[in-house]
Amino acid sequence: MKALVYHGPGSKAWEDVPDPTILQPTDAIVRVDTTTICGTDLHILKGDVAAVTDGRILGHEGVGTVTEVGDAVRNFKVGDRVIISCVSSCGVCSYCRSGNPSHCLADEGAVGIGWILGHLIDGTQAELVRTPFADNSLYALPAGVPDDAAVLLSDILPTGFEIGVQYGQVKPGDTVAVVGAGPVGLSVIATASLYGAAQIIAVDLDTNRIEKAKTMGATHGVCSKDADWKDQVIALTDGYGVDVAVEAVGIPATFRMCTDLVRPGGHVANVGVHGGPVELPLQDLWIANITISMGLVNTNTLGMLLKLVAQNKLPVGAFVTHRFGMDNVLGAYDTFGDAANSKALKVLISR
Amino acid sequence: MKALVYHGPGSKAWEDVPDPTILQPTDAIVRVDTTTICGTDLHILKGDVAAVTDGRILGHEGVGTVTEVGDAVRNFKVGDRVIISCVSSCGVCSYCRSGNPSHCLADEGAVGIGWILGHLIDGTQAELVRTPFADNSLYALPAGVPDDAAVLLSDILPTGFEIGVQYGQVKPGDTVAVVGAGPVGLSVIATASLYGAAQIIAVDLDTNRIEKAKTMGATHGVCSKDADWKDQVIALTDGYGVDVAVEAVGIPATFRMCTDLVRPGGHVANVGVHGGPVELPLQDLWIANITISMGLVNTNTLGMLLKLVAQNKLPVGAFVTHRFGMDNVLGAYDTFGDAANSKALKVLISR
Amino acid sequence: MKALVYHGPGSKAWEDVPDPTILQPTDAIVRVDTTTICGTDLHILKGDVAAVTDGRILGHEGVGTVTEVGDAVRNFKVGDRVIISCVSSCGVCSYCRSGNPSHCLADEGAVGIGWILGHLIDGTQAELVRTPFADNSLYALPAGVPDDAAVLLSDILPTGFEIGVQYGQVKPGDTVAVVGAGPVGLSVIATASLYGAAQIIAVDLDTNRIEKAKTMGATHGVCSKDADWKDQVIALTDGYGVDVAVEAVGIPATFRMCTDLVRPGGHVANVGVHGGPVELPLQDLWIANITISMGLVNTNTLGMLLKLVAQNKLPVGAFVTHRFGMDNVLGAYDTFGDAANSKALKVLISR
Amino acid sequence: MKALVYHGPGSKAWEDVPDPTILQPTDAIVRVDTTTICGTDLHILKGDVAAVTDGRILGHEGVGTVTEVGDAVRNFKVGDRVIISCVSSCGVCSYCRSGNPSHCLADEGAVGIGWILGHLIDGTQAELVRTPFADNSLYALPAGVPDDAAVLLSDILPTGFEIGVQYGQVKPGDTVAVVGAGPVGLSVIATASLYGAAQIIAVDLDTNRIEKAKTMGATHGVCSKDADWKDQVIALTDGYGVDVAVEAVGIPATFRMCTDLVRPGGHVANVGVHGGPVELPLQDLWIANITISMGLVNTNTLGMLLKLVAQNKLPVGAFVTHRFGMDNVLGAYDTFGDAANSKALKVLISR
Repeated sequence: MKALVYHGPGSKAWEDVPDPTILQPTDAIVRVDTTTICGTDLHILKGDVAAVTDGRILGHEGVGTVTEVGDAVRNFKVGDRVIISCVSSCGVCSYCRSGNPSHCLADEGAVGIGWILGHLIDGTQAELVRTPFADNSLYALPAGVPDDAAVLLSDILPTGFEIGVQYGQVKPGDTVAVVGAGPVGLSVIATASLYGAAQIIAVDLDTNRIEKAKTMGATHGVCSKDADWKDQVIALTDGYGVDVAVEAVGIPATFRMCTDLVRPGGHVANVGVHGGPVELPLQDLWIANITISMGLVNTNTLGMLLKLVAQNKLPVGAFVTHRFGMDNVLGAYDTFGDAANSKALKVLISR
Repeated sequence: MKALVYHGPGSKAWEDVPDPTILQPTDAIVRVDTTTICGTDLHILKGDVAAVTDGRILGHEGVGTVTEVGDAVRNFKVGDRVIISCVSSCGVCSYCRSGNPSHCLADEGAVGIGWILGHLIDGTQAELVRTPFADNSLYALPAGVPDDAAVLLSDILPTGFEIGVQYGQVKPGDTVAVVGAGPVGLSVIATASLYGAAQIIAVDLDTNRIEKAKTMGATHGVCSKDADWKDQVIALTDGYGVDVAVEAVGIPATFRMCTDLVRPGGHVANVGVHGGPVELPLQDLWIANITISMGLVNTNTLGMLLKLVAQNKLPVGAFVTHRFGMDNVLGAYDTFGDAANSKALKVLISR
Repeated sequence: MKALVYHGPGSKAWEDVPDPTILQPTDAIVRVDTTTICGTDLHILKGDVAAVTDGRILGHEGVGTVTEVGDAVRNFKVGDRVIISCVSSCGVCSYCRSGNPSHCLADEGAVGIGWILGHLIDGTQAELVRTPFADNSLYALPAGVPDDAAVLLSDILPTGFEIGVQYGQVKPGDTVAVVGAGPVGLSVIATASLYGAAQIIAVDLDTNRIEKAKTMGATHGVCSKDADWKDQVIALTDGYGVDVAVEAVGIPATFRMCTDLVRPGGHVANVGVHGGPVELPLQDLWIANITISMGLVNTNTLGMLLKLVAQNKLPVGAFVTHRFGMDNVLGAYDTFGDAANSKALKVLISR
Repeated sequence: MKALVYHGPGSKAWEDVPDPTILQPTDAIVRVDTTTICGTDLHILKGDVAAVTDGRILGHEGVGTVTEVGDAVRNFKVGDRVIISCVSSCGVCSYCRSGNPSHCLADEGAVGIGWILGHLIDGTQAELVRTPFADNSLYALPAGVPDDAAVLLSDILPTGFEIGVQYGQVKPGDTVAVVGAGPVGLSVIATASLYGAAQIIAVDLDTNRIEKAKTMGATHGVCSKDADWKDQVIALTDGYGVDVAVEAVGIPATFRMCTDLVRPGGHVANVGVHGGPVELPLQDLWIANITISMGLVNTNTLGMLLKLVAQNKLPVGAFVTHRFGMDNVLGAYDTFGDAANSKALKVLISR
């Protein structure tokens, strides 16, 4: 088959590789119908993720069709259309059982991480992919849900909802500020109303993204280039700050914006992937009764979000900005990697 | 009356001041029978708390007898023995109503802070004290509870329980590491079993304190002078870290010890009062699914803890190490301020 | 002043009575601008509520203007426009502190019940009303909120939200069946999406009410006159039942409909006021892992709901079906008491 | 092999049957070292559980040694000592994923019930047993835990903790009344302190059982033969009732005792298995803000409780009153069935 193979920092190729095979009776092989690119894939290509080694097939998101199942797979059969969770998890280790399959202890190339596709085992940017723990890691795709929406459920939509909205403890009536209106920030914005957020404020440098955010659930937008951006946000509250501030960029400045915006008793939910430490002003915050949360998506809510998508209850139509054939995956990377100019959010790669 | 008056950094005096009077119909005047000194009082005396100005009577903990009540006080009368909460709160503002009276918005010298005694209004290290919102901020002292135990309920015991145990989300079966076995760390240790903590590990530089901790609920102790202190703690877990790490010192090194000890999916509860920022290694932690909490005590649990103290269900007997008469409050400060030599935990000051 | 006075079962009159006066420093006197009638008022008039005695002024809902305040009232002044909570609560007793002001222990005509207006003390169907614990029991009415919407916040909207939606533990993606689409059922329907309910099914005998429900948030309607009503509801689920079934009528048949509809692991939230016992089929349900909840509204969420109403985020416009002047309160009772013909939901009585 | 086979109401035999075999790659075969008898087994023998048919091997509790594993079993190997959960669950269906494996939808003889051993498939009162979903339904037995304690973890200890303590929402400081001090009531009593229950009141007709309860965690005992039993319980509270009332018998009278004892805002947790309906006095309770819970154990807490047992932190030593060899399983039934005279709590049956 053909697959996108990583060959060390800065190097990748769409090349011939052997087809994957069933290694465990709980595995399935899935023909990839649609995949996409995540910001994490760009980090890997820069060499930021040391665990990814030369020869690894990239990609951890995808929608496809089952072509083979191991003897122990009970819930899927050849021909089933499925969504592939970015987290492969055994379902029975202490982390899976306590609601953190993101830290699954099953030995599938690593112990302590559920994100192994395109990381520690071969991934989804390929014609075929082996999916471990198929019963636990695949989700049946209902007939009426288009690939465009379904592929968002592999990672980005659950990430925004679980790590942003749920970890941020959004509750009815809350004012939520989302710092960063890229794909993952938009996922927070698109799902914050599921817990009754009354005001959802998109904060971004780019006014185009703010406008986009307003079509997907943001009730207000604030441009962080404005000198008074903080005052603009605080003016939407009772003067004491937002209930929940979500960091969806991954740099110290945006993290600090969140601790500056949050009210006493509020929550900072970090969704961004950080490359370095941040300074936490505990001399001010020790007294503030806030929580700060962070983490890798568990995709525990994938099934629930899929149900809402199938009922057309989430604004998912606007995420996909570009489409490519699988033989032009390199073009898809170029477009996604140049989002500043291409305005790319999610780029779809389909057979 | 006599009171301990702050006169700027490094300066205090036990001197004559006017008696307090009822200013609001919800006030009560309490004769202080027993008070004590908090680490925060030492911070104030060093000049670290700018809001405390020359002439302020210090102290926010105390047990006493009501001598006068305002017209609107319904639940207390002259002669009642009471515990004074360190938080004075109106009970009706948005912060009080949402469970954060620590950030009460009522205008009693400040808005946005419930800790006003010995801070923004005159405090409890005095013969008499005015207590605002008496119905809300005083607690009737049952006959059988000695002052030694009762005075711990003003601040330190609820602080350990609320900010350490509850914010740390301790649950049955958990392994909890408490970094710092001073008075507040001991309060965490003494109450962690209320949520079923299975292992409570006291981590401190001082082996004497560790031994003390073991008499108050710690199941294990680790001396942080040992080069392998971290390995010793991790060896008590399944190898992935503790469920809850409680910071009870207030410096960057001990905060870092907590983020180093916590397992994926676990909780860091900061109880310490910090004077500067800490570095948060988000490049490692963004993926860890942990929460970090912090805050000022609300004393929401004072009544519940009092019930347990009255039933002799908490190991409160060991906190008080020294006793002083009120006329020797300066001696009490000397002893408490020299805890390294005096081995002082809580020093009692009584009429 | 004039007031609607209860004179024993079946007897009431709009008559002259003495003006109310401040009895406690925490009281306020409010001139009633708009009040309304609750189903409970009809129960009282039938003689079902023995605690209501001859001479009592009825009514526990209202919007008005403060005309006098006691010395201890800090948050309201003469001229302020306010919403009167149907629950009068001290804020400091063990019930208030634990989130159940509905069972406030303060002695205001009774101990153990926060609903005293129009029950144990004189109520709001009058030109003036004394409101105990004014700081705790009144809410400032923002300029832009009309009385029509505001008066719903005294009781019915919080009742639907707290006792139906919150007690029912509605969560994102849930299917919620509301049995009974009268005013309180509609309040559940209007607020269930605040916790992300995906399907809200109005079940009623009356197809007109079902149509009304669909304008206020119901995604589906089922007529309980249909022989296959249960199958119709179950067909909207995965076949195992609804996540949450809300009883909003108050008779054994509708309660049984709820236990029949709920899925294993689901919730039955009883909102209806019952006059007799119901049979609970524990031989079937002991194994079902369901919860059954019930209770009097606390109005803890009044402030939050008011914020949403002020932002036009709740479909409150359709509740008021009839309007009367205060001198025609008897006509209002006639219309409300004949809802089957008048199609009355909430009838407004205004100065 | 030999096994205890059900032959219709009133009829059972210890007889030769074929050895079980692996049917699914996720199965394991376990040699039963120790099993026990549950009250449910007595119900089955009376013919109360229609789903159990002639020829079924009884028993759903047990400790044993793995003798064979299917190809897909990853976490257990031949020779491993294990605890068998009474719930067999797939781990991936909507019920398993939402924390209710007690209602697992996997087709293993039934859909919608996780308790299948000794019910819908052959059980543990045999020399060998097939255990479906072995990775999910077996728990490794640490070396130091004796069979006497381990076998309690199959069902009764998790039942008391999950359905009594957790569903009852016991919290620090609570007063808990447990009506019925048989094995399951004692399991509630033995685990209620894991959430900080301050007072645990054993209520039973039998004073011997009350004394036993006091050795296992009860702080008080009340004999329900006493005319003033209710007053005795209420006297241990502030006069308004207990925070949590646990029903651990399964008849209308004891259920009513619980709704009579519970305070406003409290919880009734039904643990008993009922054979008929109960009357719920909603005319009184609709206003009481209580919850009523019920259900089949999920054994979600088996692993946590096992950890505590291994640390000698639970009073499990007193449950086992009688021991039998496997060839005398009929004698064990006689003793257990005559508990009134034999004082049997748990009877052990071992190889």
